[in-house]
Amino acid sequence: MGVVVNLEDGKKPEASIAALVELTAGDMKAVNELILSKAGSDVTMIPEVANHLISSGGKRLRPMLTLAAAKLFGYEGDGHVKLAMSVEFMHTATLLHDDVVDESGMRRGKKTARMIWGNQASVLVGDFLLGQAFRTMVDVGSLEALDILANAAAVIAEGEVLQLSVAKNLETTEDEYLEVIKAKTAALFSAAAEVGPVIAKASRNDRTALRSYGTNLGYAFQLVDDALDYGGSTKDLGKNVGDDFREGKVTLPVILSYRRGTEDERAFWRQAIEGGNADDAGLEKALGLMKKHNAIADTIGRARHFGGIARDALAPMPNSRHKTALLDVIDFCISRVV
Amino acid sequence: MGVVVNLEDGKKPEASIAALVELTAGDMKAVNELILSKAGSDVTMIPEVANHLISSGGKRLRPMLTLAAAKLFGYEGDGHVKLAMSVEFMHTATLLHDDVVDESGMRRGKKTARMIWGNQASVLVGDFLLGQAFRTMVDVGSLEALDILANAAAVIAEGEVLQLSVAKNLETTEDEYLEVIKAKTAALFSAAAEVGPVIAKASRNDRTALRSYGTNLGYAFQLVDDALDYGGSTKDLGKNVGDDFREGKVTLPVILSYRRGTEDERAFWRQAIEGGNADDAGLEKALGLMKKHNAIADTIGRARHFGGIARDALAPMPNSRHKTALLDVIDFCISRVV
Repeated sequence: MGVVVNLEDGKKPEASIAALVELTAGDMKAVNELILSKAGSDVTMIPEVANHLISSGGKRLRPMLTLAAAKLFGYEGDGHVKLAMSVEFMHTATLLHDDVVDESGMRRGKKTARMIWGNQASVLVGDFLLGQAFRTMVDVGSLEALDILANAAAVIAEGEVLQLSVAKNLETTEDEYLEVIKAKTAALFSAAAEVGPVIAKASRNDRTALRSYGTNLGYAFQLVDDALDYGGSTKDLGKNVGDDFREGKVTLPVILSYRRGTEDERAFWRQAIEGGNADDAGLEKALGLMKKHNAIADTIGRARHFGGIARDALAPMPNSRHKTALLDVIDFCISRVV
Repeated sequence: MGVVVNLEDGKKPEASIAALVELTAGDMKAVNELILSKAGSDVTMIPEVANHLISSGGKRLRPMLTLAAAKLFGYEGDGHVKLAMSVEFMHTATLLHDDVVDESGMRRGKKTARMIWGNQASVLVGDFLLGQAFRTMVDVGSLEALDILANAAAVIAEGEVLQLSVAKNLETTEDEYLEVIKAKTAALFSAAAEVGPVIAKASRNDRTALRSYGTNLGYAFQLVDDALDYGGSTKDLGKNVGDDFREGKVTLPVILSYRRGTEDERAFWRQAIEGGNADDAGLEKALGLMKKHNAIADTIGRARHFGGIARDALAPMPNSRHKTALLDVIDFCISRVV
């Protein structure tokens, strides 16, 4: 059932992110220790719920970005570790709340926290992690970094609300959809990357460059994620192919197929997405229509476009191992669709 | 059906909070304008949901505390207005999430946001308001104030999770219950009061005094709230008498009645609270048992105890209109039970 998309460069995902993992390994050990410590509480349900998600094998891409972005500008100190942890907690809090809002059953191949501990615990532990994220950021003492991350938190929540209104609306334009993922995904990638040069007291241009890198990497990442939901396999994804379809989510592959479709095809999409008739037979048909209209390949094409902007954002930086590692992440994000 | 409790001082609520309202009227105008502005968003659902709760006639006691506590130490500037707004947004976010967690239908005599816009919007708009609160705090530029409020946010969420485990457990001790309301209510009162002297650059002793005032006022406020749920009238409360009972909430009046009760009475409480058999006949019986064991009066007695500590916390301060207004709030909180 998967749609196989061959990429020109054919890079292996493992290869691509390896440099970043290696460069940040020492700091990530400290981040992971801080995560475990800050997810701790005498209220035993909190570490249980938090660790369920934290230990579920996410790549921790966002905190690695913060670490590498700080080191790219020669940062010495431990503020980058604290900010990286805060970024990961903000991400985890968002996932906990998202699963409640989307009524999701599975994430990364495991039952979601809400299926085990309920919606109540997921909402509140999310709030707790967000609170811990802010405490830890404050501890770093950089008002500029705080401003960036607090801003991201508000934008992310705003984006999630925006997504509610977009969710079942097939008339959503590509522009409107890009606004959603700008807030939902790109804002945190952007903040994660920008706080690096900020605490390293790098120049205004360097800050702007890293912010642009993060934003566009975030766009690329989310668009590929949307494509993966209609390709890949359950094993690779940790979620089932067609989850977005079954939940009636309007993502770019759907938007493109709908806009390029015939009247009959549009009626099918309306019945499936807006009418809630998104079963397995519907998924087969949806995949066929996406293929017919080149919707998956073009979604990946858009991702590649944003990846290019991210690449150019870093172009003025002198060559370094950290720069190379950050550039590799762009390829990694896009080459996940194999 | 109401349990009428006469207070020795017999003060009228309107009289008691009037001085604080009058002293902070000018600043509260600025706070209210900032609230409207920061609850604004191009995503129209956000101001709708936010304004539903914000305009629903809460007393805005917490932001008034922040304003008065700053002015008590001669603060000049506009930081107290921003912090007051942040405190109110933190409170509003908590209410939105609480109503989802408690599956509440009514708040302050109106339908809850979740009944009108759904749980999803309530969770996400709460997140948005929390994000806006942090942005606005950061804007004030005081790392100490940020630390206090971020800490409160984490403690509040932790307390809410703790409350989940306490919710239907009749063996909860009074100490355990006080831990819950310390986190759930007292933490924000405490932070609201403490940030006043902090931005006014008052002494360490003044900070400690206002923190203690806020904490103990918070205890008193919540205990009276618990008592009111078994007294007063729907009109006064904006919620129905017995809501806590019907939701199986274990509050101090229940804890005291249960611990002081006979075996038969304990069996009744277990069936009602743990067994989910809390109907109107059950409420009548519960009110009778509370009367028999003096549970409401003793709950108010506990509130009075904390009120006394709050009063003494302010004792060393020189007399001033702001000090008098803050002292009056203690009486107001307790005299709500009339």
